[in-house]
Amino acid sequence: MENGSRKWCFQGNQELDQKSDVTIRTVLDMLLKNLNKDDSRPVIPLGHGDPSRFPCFRTAAAAVNAISDALRSAEYNSYAPTIGVLPARRAVADYLSRDLPYKLSPDDVNLTLGCTQAIEISLSALARPGTNILLPRPGFPYYEARAALSRLEVRHFDLLPEKGWEVDFDGVEALADENTVAMVIINPGNPCGNVYSYEHLKKVAETARKLGILVIADEVYDHLSFGSTKYVPMGVFGSIVPVLTLGSISKRWVVPGWRLGWLAISDPNGILKESGVVKSITTLLNVSSDPPTFIQGAVPQIIENTKEDFFNNIIGILRETADICYDRIKEIPCLSCPSKPEGSMFVVVKLNLSMLEGIADDVDFCVKLAREESVMVLPGVAVGMKNWLRITFAVEPSSLEDGLKRVKAFCRRYAKNE
Amino acid sequence: MENGSRKWCFQGNQELDQKSDVTIRTVLDMLLKNLNKDDSRPVIPLGHGDPSRFPCFRTAAAAVNAISDALRSAEYNSYAPTIGVLPARRAVADYLSRDLPYKLSPDDVNLTLGCTQAIEISLSALARPGTNILLPRPGFPYYEARAALSRLEVRHFDLLPEKGWEVDFDGVEALADENTVAMVIINPGNPCGNVYSYEHLKKVAETARKLGILVIADEVYDHLSFGSTKYVPMGVFGSIVPVLTLGSISKRWVVPGWRLGWLAISDPNGILKESGVVKSITTLLNVSSDPPTFIQGAVPQIIENTKEDFFNNIIGILRETADICYDRIKEIPCLSCPSKPEGSMFVVVKLNLSMLEGIADDVDFCVKLAREESVMVLPGVAVGMKNWLRITFAVEPSSLEDGLKRVKAFCRRYAKNE
Ligand SMILES: Cc1ncc(COP(=O)(O)O)c(C=O)c1O
Ligand SMILES: Cc1ncc(COP(=O)(O)O)c(C=O)c1O
Repeated sequence: MENGSRKWCFQGNQELDQKSDVTIRTVLDMLLKNLNKDDSRPVIPLGHGDPSRFPCFRTAAAAVNAISDALRSAEYNSYAPTIGVLPARRAVADYLSRDLPYKLSPDDVNLTLGCTQAIEISLSALARPGTNILLPRPGFPYYEARAALSRLEVRHFDLLPEKGWEVDFDGVEALADENTVAMVIINPGNPCGNVYSYEHLKKVAETARKLGILVIADEVYDHLSFGSTKYVPMGVFGSIVPVLTLGSISKRWVVPGWRLGWLAISDPNGILKESGVVKSITTLLNVSSDPPTFIQGAVPQIIENTKEDFFNNIIGILRETADICYDRIKEIPCLSCPSKPEGSMFVVVKLNLSMLEGIADDVDFCVKLAREESVMVLPGVAVGMKNWLRITFAVEPSSLEDGLKRVKAFCRRYAKNE
Repeated sequence: MENGSRKWCFQGNQELDQKSDVTIRTVLDMLLKNLNKDDSRPVIPLGHGDPSRFPCFRTAAAAVNAISDALRSAEYNSYAPTIGVLPARRAVADYLSRDLPYKLSPDDVNLTLGCTQAIEISLSALARPGTNILLPRPGFPYYEARAALSRLEVRHFDLLPEKGWEVDFDGVEALADENTVAMVIINPGNPCGNVYSYEHLKKVAETARKLGILVIADEVYDHLSFGSTKYVPMGVFGSIVPVLTLGSISKRWVVPGWRLGWLAISDPNGILKESGVVKSITTLLNVSSDPPTFIQGAVPQIIENTKEDFFNNIIGILRETADICYDRIKEIPCLSCPSKPEGSMFVVVKLNLSMLEGIADDVDFCVKLAREESVMVLPGVAVGMKNWLRITFAVEPSSLEDGLKRVKAFCRRYAKNE
């Protein structure tokens, strides 16, 4: 590169820039730039899953106190050991074991910077030249971005809208070959808001076993289920197939800003240890930054002292807002929702562009909606579903009503006259 | 891999395991395993730079209060923007600008998970196929590990013990070619405990400019200088050569467990922006985990409310312990210290093996020292100096005296009879 008379030898990494181009963050940043500053109405954020700003989703006082106590104890100002402080790993192991037919040990649990870092570490540990991974479509684009950075080839299997977003097993079997190392399951589902049944997860395990691949179970929305299907962790099937269980306190405790997550080895047969995957995970954690030590130190108290009431209250609000969301969307002719959300914080809805005038696609829809109605909604293309939308209902009920009213008015304005 | 009758397609990433084999963490973990549990004396940790466990190095109350206030405000439970919350970036920009001939803007500052993540992001942003980077020897092995993961070729230039650990510029010029993108300077120095003069840093800038490479200035020990040389940030020479300034609150505030750092663009001519390096840094931050939002939220108060007294006290203790360390080492015949430490928390000392009986090398020395004396010292090989030792003096003075007394007894026990 020339700068004046100088020649510099360095430059940015364009290959990397292109690979990681579409993340939810970049798309939302683009939408933010389109907001109209002259609109005096509040911006309604239906674009990303972070309800923590709303008073009704305020986290448990016990969790705040746990952090504050750990901080003030001055016992957690030091560097933490690579995989996390022992009491925290033990607490997470016990927490996860409550729902498993076997017990995880503290050594099965690695603490991470949110589920985000657990994804990063899992994919990097599995990436060897030539390997590929099966990701769901629609899905969570962070997987695609991280796989690209790790040079792990991505193959997409479909989730079937007409079957409650279940996995298309025929697709999975057709995609897999001897270089396939893993498949990813997000349950409760982002972006689909579905919750998989025990039987379906068992079939996931059996299919993965048949293919000789492991299952990466993204359970960042664990326990956030409020419909008829009970949440079951994938680790329940750990003796059929080895499972990497990824989770965090971000969603259930409504504190995504605290960045505390885990990567648990749900593998009672020790296959991941034997195959060297556990070793590579440790290697990577050795050369990564850890969650702040005092946050780790607070984990046992966060888990122990948070009352059921808190969780029940959150579930109650999510059930209410999921209902509102589903009902209001039904009233909007150009939007259709294949199934009522039963879990997580999202729903995906299909955009019928033929009923609209002057809207080119999902991105155009979302840009104009942001500009004209100060409502943020994620274009489906960001999660692998062109001309769909991902809407979060995890906002204060009155804001949700307001937001969807604006969406309705927006759609009416652009409706084709028939 | 076979497991019983099953064949699994996944395995660990051995290439990666090998590449990241020697980090300070892995070496210290190995030493820890060699401690003798029957020794009733306290373990003296002279192996790593984390004095936060010692009461005399307790962090400032103002810093603890700042975090606690941010946490309790409930305003920082949400996800943060990619490069960090604005007030924190502004506070760091102002903090760094105090010592610069130009002003950094908040957009020049990216918040990171300690200096560790700043290193990771810098190296990944610069790594393109075929590129190489110049690292100091002795140095901080995290750079080597991260460069290997990013497929960035490493070339080592020497720091010269007989010249106060200054950079061997002839070596630098001989190593660089058109694929060299950057050189790394750690100042105040780890592991050497040196502080570079204004003139020397200017020469670094001029050399880098001549070679067309940027300077990565690791200033994680910023302001921890207590000798005759004043600490000068590399960014002072940002108009000669573009500088990436890496830092954190880990060392100066003695809170490495809080994981709050930064990557600042000290480049008033905008060359890093023009060359795409800034863009790649943003891309990488987009797909990385952030420092917890409430810790970011506390940064302005941490910086503003920490009194000079606190810093002066820490510097006073480090000056005292550096003196103790230097004087006691002089009393041990088989150890020699090329120069008195003036900064950071470390000193490197040369091991004269010919004066010892039954000690094979630096690792053997450290293993036996851990086992027999419950003193942890880092073998030099971990920082690129075979048969040297890295000793930290950032411990309570009485512990340091005790530890070095044990080192002396140990050396006497293994001394050759002449
Ligand atoms: C499916 C999925 N995985 C992982 C994450 C990241 O979780 P965390 O905030 O714990 O890093 C999210 C966040 O939205 C998510 O939706
Ligand atoms: C030279 C150097 N750079 C970076 C770091 C990492 O700093 P942080 O704790 O802020 O991640 C250290 C820690 O010891 C160090 O010595």
